[in-house]
Amino acid sequence: MTPERLSLFDTTLRDGQQTQGVQFSANEKTQIAQALDALGVDYIEGGWPGANPTDSAFFDQRPQTRATFTAFGMTKRAGRSAANDDVLAAVLNANTPAVCLVGKTYDFHVDTALGITLEENLANIRESIAHLVAQGREALFDAEHFFDGWSANRAYALDCLIAARDAGARWIVLCDTNGGTLPADVGRITAEVIAADIPGERLGIHTHDDTGNAVAASLAAVDAGARQIQGTLNGLGERCGNANLTTLIPTLLLKEPYASRFETGVTPDALARLTRTSRMLDDILNRIPLRSAPYVGASAFAHKAGLHASAIVKDPTTYEHVAPEIVGNARIVPMSNQAGQSNLLRRLSEMGIEAEKGDPALGRILDTVKEREAQGFAYDSAQASFELLARKGLGLAQDFFDVERYRVISERRRNAKGEIVVESEAVVTISTRDGPVTSYFKNEHPQEMQDDGPVNALWQALKSDLGPWQARIDDMRLTDFKVRITQGGTEAVTQVVIDFADDEGRAWATVGVSANIVDASFQALVDAIEWKLVRDTAVSKAAE
Amino acid sequence: MTPERLSLFDTTLRDGQQTQGVQFSANEKTQIAQALDALGVDYIEGGWPGANPTDSAFFDQRPQTRATFTAFGMTKRAGRSAANDDVLAAVLNANTPAVCLVGKTYDFHVDTALGITLEENLANIRESIAHLVAQGREALFDAEHFFDGWSANRAYALDCLIAARDAGARWIVLCDTNGGTLPADVGRITAEVIAADIPGERLGIHTHDDTGNAVAASLAAVDAGARQIQGTLNGLGERCGNANLTTLIPTLLLKEPYASRFETGVTPDALARLTRTSRMLDDILNRIPLRSAPYVGASAFAHKAGLHASAIVKDPTTYEHVAPEIVGNARIVPMSNQAGQSNLLRRLSEMGIEAEKGDPALGRILDTVKEREAQGFAYDSAQASFELLARKGLGLAQDFFDVERYRVISERRRNAKGEIVVESEAVVTISTRDGPVTSYFKNEHPQEMQDDGPVNALWQALKSDLGPWQARIDDMRLTDFKVRITQGGTEAVTQVVIDFADDEGRAWATVGVSANIVDASFQALVDAIEWKLVRDTAVSKAAE
Repeated sequence: MTPERLSLFDTTLRDGQQTQGVQFSANEKTQIAQALDALGVDYIEGGWPGANPTDSAFFDQRPQTRATFTAFGMTKRAGRSAANDDVLAAVLNANTPAVCLVGKTYDFHVDTALGITLEENLANIRESIAHLVAQGREALFDAEHFFDGWSANRAYALDCLIAARDAGARWIVLCDTNGGTLPADVGRITAEVIAADIPGERLGIHTHDDTGNAVAASLAAVDAGARQIQGTLNGLGERCGNANLTTLIPTLLLKEPYASRFETGVTPDALARLTRTSRMLDDILNRIPLRSAPYVGASAFAHKAGLHASAIVKDPTTYEHVAPEIVGNARIVPMSNQAGQSNLLRRLSEMGIEAEKGDPALGRILDTVKEREAQGFAYDSAQASFELLARKGLGLAQDFFDVERYRVISERRRNAKGEIVVESEAVVTISTRDGPVTSYFKNEHPQEMQDDGPVNALWQALKSDLGPWQARIDDMRLTDFKVRITQGGTEAVTQVVIDFADDEGRAWATVGVSANIVDASFQALVDAIEWKLVRDTAVSKAAE
Repeated sequence: MTPERLSLFDTTLRDGQQTQGVQFSANEKTQIAQALDALGVDYIEGGWPGANPTDSAFFDQRPQTRATFTAFGMTKRAGRSAANDDVLAAVLNANTPAVCLVGKTYDFHVDTALGITLEENLANIRESIAHLVAQGREALFDAEHFFDGWSANRAYALDCLIAARDAGARWIVLCDTNGGTLPADVGRITAEVIAADIPGERLGIHTHDDTGNAVAASLAAVDAGARQIQGTLNGLGERCGNANLTTLIPTLLLKEPYASRFETGVTPDALARLTRTSRMLDDILNRIPLRSAPYVGASAFAHKAGLHASAIVKDPTTYEHVAPEIVGNARIVPMSNQAGQSNLLRRLSEMGIEAEKGDPALGRILDTVKEREAQGFAYDSAQASFELLARKGLGLAQDFFDVERYRVISERRRNAKGEIVVESEAVVTISTRDGPVTSYFKNEHPQEMQDDGPVNALWQALKSDLGPWQARIDDMRLTDFKVRITQGGTEAVTQVVIDFADDEGRAWATVGVSANIVDASFQALVDAIEWKLVRDTAVSKAAE
């Protein structure tokens, strides 16, 4: 069976921009468009030229792409010709090879939102699409509220699609604009539309996640015969978001019946960059990536349950529906008080530490993990602190430095001009094989709300002079800082988890716990440095 | 048509605890169990008694619930009787009315993970379920990897279900343990199982979100005839999470064909508390609630697109599939200021502040709230800080004191005996109508891990001497302290929310935001004191 082509239409830059709190700059749009092109989608919808200054600027500077660049707009307004509609003209002036126009197909909306007659709306669809085609553009028609419209007035909704079809629309996209249509209904109605002579090869599906079913509804439409899926990276979009292409793409490429039946523009190489592409978008938006995201989330291949972890050691397919590396993700077997010895052995082996099954140290390490988790430590999100604990338990720890003392001061006061300023400073003394080393940091330009606080001061001091080890930590960066108030025995304590990265592309996390948030943070900072020193030592030993 | 009963089985406390980074304390489990019971689920699975100290402690103290309390465990091991299996005995010793045992149904797993014969596994299922029934417990059988097992060896998978059915299991739960089965296959296989004489009234469905289809797959199983859904609040769970009950419950209650066809234990009143229940779980986990979550997310009813926002003003049903208040959520229309003003007037009146509709100060207050929330402030959870902001905006604020300066020191050092100790101290200077007042606090008994840190030191200093107002704050207590790293514009900042109470039974919360955690906390401490002084003044004026 020759695979059929399935078209992927990305609207991250248009519907994705409707996400609350999201506002792309023109340069960010360019960066995302390039990533989408590298991923292999067929269409990139860039925004609505003329609707706002950013979108207009972006279309002026849009990158060259293999994907068909698409401008979004709406069907012409009543009472003027398509050629004389200035809103439509602005869309066409962006000179994209394809144009997607949204139009009404639900009689209630024609009446309530537009206040025009049903026939006027049909004429708007027909004439707008014909105008695009006459201008040599590929025309797409977004049938807004189509599923609600079909359920309320099937004949009229169909007339709208026929108007677009006969005017020459390449794609007619069935939009579940309010996101309320369940997958079974999306599948049934799509089949009914095809039976009413709108060919599946010209039908697209555009869903929203208001019932948590956007992905499933897209698949249901494809099952019924639609051949274009519209969605966004990471499921960005109005309200609860659009169908998540980051989820749909691996499902379409890896899982049956889709893998055998269809082909898309996404290559295996591009699929192996999917996790990175997803994280890049979060980076641009300065969002913390969703750990639980299908395929690309940091937890998507994390096996915490003891039963699962022990079977994964025997055979990864026991608890994984696809292999993590296919989508550029990685398996995690986190430590927690639910994990057993086989989990521990596997974790150690991944860290390059070989231990014998039955070694009494393993039981002691598990006991220590349990005891410290009861105090508030969280080793499943702080693998580096866990590794240090395990190395100490196995007698494999090397002593690089000891902390003799730190002192950190935060102060709010009035400066010479009488303005309130906040400033922090820290001093740290460590002992090393070369003797004591004292480091110091002070925020030299205090202004209100501009001081980064005592933890930053400690970090800046500590990493500025580590004596004989300084060169080894020069490339360390603190990338995220999380604080949680939790129970340590009977008292509330502060749990701090800090993420780090270095220039070799490593990323690691450590944990500290104390009633004193500064001391909890300091523990995590010291662990992070020790882990980096241990790892670099292990690497240089292996190279010998 | 008489509605059929659909059973809701919650596993937040068991499978939800498999979420990476989640570790409930016994008290947190109690709090969540009570919320689940108030929501109206039929079963609450509390954990695995005997598997770890927390779960054992929780079952010892478990709350009384209307829902059927359920302990989780696994079928007995081969080579011993059900009565002599210590793991199973620990589960039974928790004395719950229902017990859910997971067992293998996929021949590959019997072989690879258990290393026993297929017949031994059948005997383990049969004898374990019979043992539960003989002990007077309601028995549930979790058919692990059922869908994969059915596809690989249908006859054996069915034999496993028959063994459980004939041994007296009330529910046989089809588990898509790896989360890789798509909804169409879940529906088809569930129908095949029913056709093979496992009644739908005894079938449950347990899905995971590894392809973003957990909700849709659950609905597909119900469409095919299954009558129990297993899931978790907020979709917590192993890897990408379980089927999200927070999403499924409103769909089942509000949307067709489910609303007419089924009844559940969830009342309209409980549904109207759904958003609050979801947020409570995030509070316990100290997670930032997912804005895009269906039904309960802060963005679920946010209408950002210009076309949508203007139509919403004419008729909310134009762009909403359900009304937000039904699930205890609220509409957000960023463009419209009118709804904002009537909300604000209502909130002020609840605080005893009367303002005129149309007062220009109201618009300025809304602008300030918007601007400060963009900086990271959260006035929903800090009503006292909001009240102070509103009073200042309306010119109703009284100036009690100003902070001139604070200085806080945290230190780790070695004491005279060479032991490491941590200590904090703080000094605060305020100006009052009686002149400057300086207060001081130092932890006099430093020991490692026993210092309460810089924020406590500031609080102890500040509340020890407030000059002329000291008597008014003597009964103030700090009851909870929450820290979140959040977005303030483009930078990550620290948001601190602190809860307070006094001897008159008042409880209030304040918020502070800064990159410096000490300064963010200090803002919240000062707000809390000011609020108490304002309220006491209002009370004494009213009494005059």
